[in-house]
Amino acid sequence: MPEYRLALLGFGNVGRALARLLLRKRTALLEQYGITFTVTGIATGRHGMAIDPGGLDIERACQWVERGENLQQLSRLTSLADSFAFIRHCPADVLFENSPVSYRDGQPAVDHIRLALQRGMHAVTANKGPVVHAYHELTELAQAVGRKFYFESTVMDGAPIFSLFRSALPAAHLTSIHGILNSTTNLILNRMEQGESFEQAVAYAQSTGITETDPSGDIDGWDAAIKVSALVTVLMGAPLKPAQVKRQGIRHLTPADIAHARQQGKRWKLVCSAQRTPDGILAQVAPEMVAQDSPMYLVDGTTSIVQFESDVLGKLSIIEADPGPHTTAYGLLADFINAVREDG
Amino acid sequence: MPEYRLALLGFGNVGRALARLLLRKRTALLEQYGITFTVTGIATGRHGMAIDPGGLDIERACQWVERGENLQQLSRLTSLADSFAFIRHCPADVLFENSPVSYRDGQPAVDHIRLALQRGMHAVTANKGPVVHAYHELTELAQAVGRKFYFESTVMDGAPIFSLFRSALPAAHLTSIHGILNSTTNLILNRMEQGESFEQAVAYAQSTGITETDPSGDIDGWDAAIKVSALVTVLMGAPLKPAQVKRQGIRHLTPADIAHARQQGKRWKLVCSAQRTPDGILAQVAPEMVAQDSPMYLVDGTTSIVQFESDVLGKLSIIEADPGPHTTAYGLLADFINAVREDG
Repeated sequence: MPEYRLALLGFGNVGRALARLLLRKRTALLEQYGITFTVTGIATGRHGMAIDPGGLDIERACQWVERGENLQQLSRLTSLADSFAFIRHCPADVLFENSPVSYRDGQPAVDHIRLALQRGMHAVTANKGPVVHAYHELTELAQAVGRKFYFESTVMDGAPIFSLFRSALPAAHLTSIHGILNSTTNLILNRMEQGESFEQAVAYAQSTGITETDPSGDIDGWDAAIKVSALVTVLMGAPLKPAQVKRQGIRHLTPADIAHARQQGKRWKLVCSAQRTPDGILAQVAPEMVAQDSPMYLVDGTTSIVQFESDVLGKLSIIEADPGPHTTAYGLLADFINAVREDG
Repeated sequence: MPEYRLALLGFGNVGRALARLLLRKRTALLEQYGITFTVTGIATGRHGMAIDPGGLDIERACQWVERGENLQQLSRLTSLADSFAFIRHCPADVLFENSPVSYRDGQPAVDHIRLALQRGMHAVTANKGPVVHAYHELTELAQAVGRKFYFESTVMDGAPIFSLFRSALPAAHLTSIHGILNSTTNLILNRMEQGESFEQAVAYAQSTGITETDPSGDIDGWDAAIKVSALVTVLMGAPLKPAQVKRQGIRHLTPADIAHARQQGKRWKLVCSAQRTPDGILAQVAPEMVAQDSPMYLVDGTTSIVQFESDVLGKLSIIEADPGPHTTAYGLLADFINAVREDG
C-alpha cells in the first residue's frame, strides 16, 4: 500500500481527537493493515490552515491550536483564501471533513466533499448534513471516481451502524428501525424522572456541555429527525429529508406525565422510528412511554440504542454507552481504514 | 463472478433453513452482489446423500427429507461411502458444514472443514467445535489456499459478531467481553423468577425444544463456556479451550437465592465474561446478580446479549431477540456472501 496523505478540514474537539487517535494507532495500522500515513494539511476555523506536502507534526498542531496560536506558521504554503483553496492545494488521498455545518442545507460540507471527491480523494465525515442533503449525489460521484464517501460517525458516534449493513449484514432487507438517538433529550427526561422541572433539567444538560447554547434543535426533535433521515436514506434506500420526518419534541411533557408513566411501570423516551408500510416509509420522532420489555427502557443519559428488524434476523439492537469526541474520532478512523483497504 | 457450486453437509433444521433462504434470496444475491449459485451436493445423516454436478432441486430435497425419504435417488453418483467421500466427490466451491459434532474434539467437523479447504472450497459452519478446537489451524490453512473459514452462526446465531470485528470495527483492541449467551439457562432462570422450582423450569425448557434431552451441557455452563472460548480465541487472539474457562452452572441456585436477588432489585443471570488482565485473559461463566444499570438486566428468555469494551469505543452491546434456525441460516448465508465477495 502507498503512504496515505491525509487532510483534516475542521480541527475542533473531534478533529484533534482524530489526530491523536491516528498517532496512537500508527503501529496497529501498519501491522494489521499495512497502512502508513502522513497528515499533509490541517484547516481550522479560527486558527488558520497549514499545508506541508512532507507531513505536518500532528501533536504540535494540536498543541498550537489548544494554546490559541495560528497554524499558518507551520505551513509551507502561504496564505490560502479559504477551505476550498485548502482542498485544492493540499496534496491528499483522504479528506476528513469535520467543519461547522448548516443543518438546513448541509453546507459548506457538501461542497467540500464534492470537491475532494472530484480531486480523487476519499471523503470521510462526522457531519450529518451531507448525508441527509446529498447522500445519493455524493455516493454516485464517489463511485464514478472510484473513491468512497463514508460517514460512520454521523449516527451513534463510532458505533458501527452503516458499516454493519455494508459489510456484516449482507442481503438483509431492513423493515423497521427504532431507537433513542438524541442524548440531550434522554438526559433531560432522566433528570425529570428524578424530580427536576423541564427547565431545571435543560439547564443541567447545558451545564454538562452536551447540548448547544440553544437546545431547541435537541428538544424539538430536529437532531433526532436528522438521524432518522440519515438511517432511512442510507439503510432503507429511500431518500428522506429531515422535514419529512413526523416530528414531536419533549417540550410539552410535564412532571405529571412522567409520574403517570412511572405508575404504569413505563418511562418516557424520545423514540425515533421508521417502518416500511404499503404506503412507503413512515418515519417519526416522538415521545413514547416505553415498557420494561423493550431494551430501550434502560437506556439512560448519553447512552444510545438502535434496534433493527429485518427479513433475515429477529430484532437486532446495538447500544453504545460512554460516547464522546474519542468515539466519534474512532468512527472516522474506521471509515478511513475501510475506504483504503477496499482500494485493493 | 462465476456461478458458485454449493455443498451442504448436514441437512437438519438449520441445513434446510439455509437451503430455503438461498432460494428466497436468489434474486437479491444476483442483483446486489452479482452472485449466482447452484447446490451440487446435499449430505444428510439418516437420509442419504445426493450429488448432481448440474444442480439439485433444493425444494424437492427439503421435501423428501421431511417426508423421510432417502436423497440417494436424486443423486447422479451412486453410493458414497461416507461424508468424506461426499466432500471428495462433490464438485463445489463452498462447503456448508452443519453435521452433528462432538464438543469434546470438534469432530468430524474439523476433518470435514480441513478436507474442504484442501480441496479449494470456502468452509462455512454453524458448529462451534471447529472454532474452539482448530481455529488457528483451519484459519492458517484457509489463508494458505486462498479460501475462507467463516463461522458467524456459532455465537448468537446470525447476529454479526465475528464479522463486526473483521469488517466494521477495524483496529479496535478488545479489552473485555460480557454477555448472556445460553438461552436455556436464561429461560430457566426466568421461570424460577415466576415461582417455578429448578426441576419444573428445566422440564419447561425441555418442553419448548430449545434444550437437549440431557440439559446438563446448558445447566452446567458448558455451552456458554464453549462460546466464551470461541469469542476469546477469535476476537482476543488468544487460544482458549472450553476447559480453561472457569465455569459454574446454575444447578445450585434456589428459590431463596432468586428471592434474595429480587429484594435487592437484581436478577440472576448466567454471565459469560472475559477480561484482559496483567496475567492474561481471565474467562469465566458464572451466575451473577445483575443490577438494573446493566443492559443484561432485561435480557429474557431466548434473547442473548454480548457487550464489548475496547480501547476505541465505550461499551458496545449487541442484543439478538427471536433467534431460531432461520437466523442461524442467515449467518451461514452472510458468511458465504462475505467469503465470495472477498474473492476480489
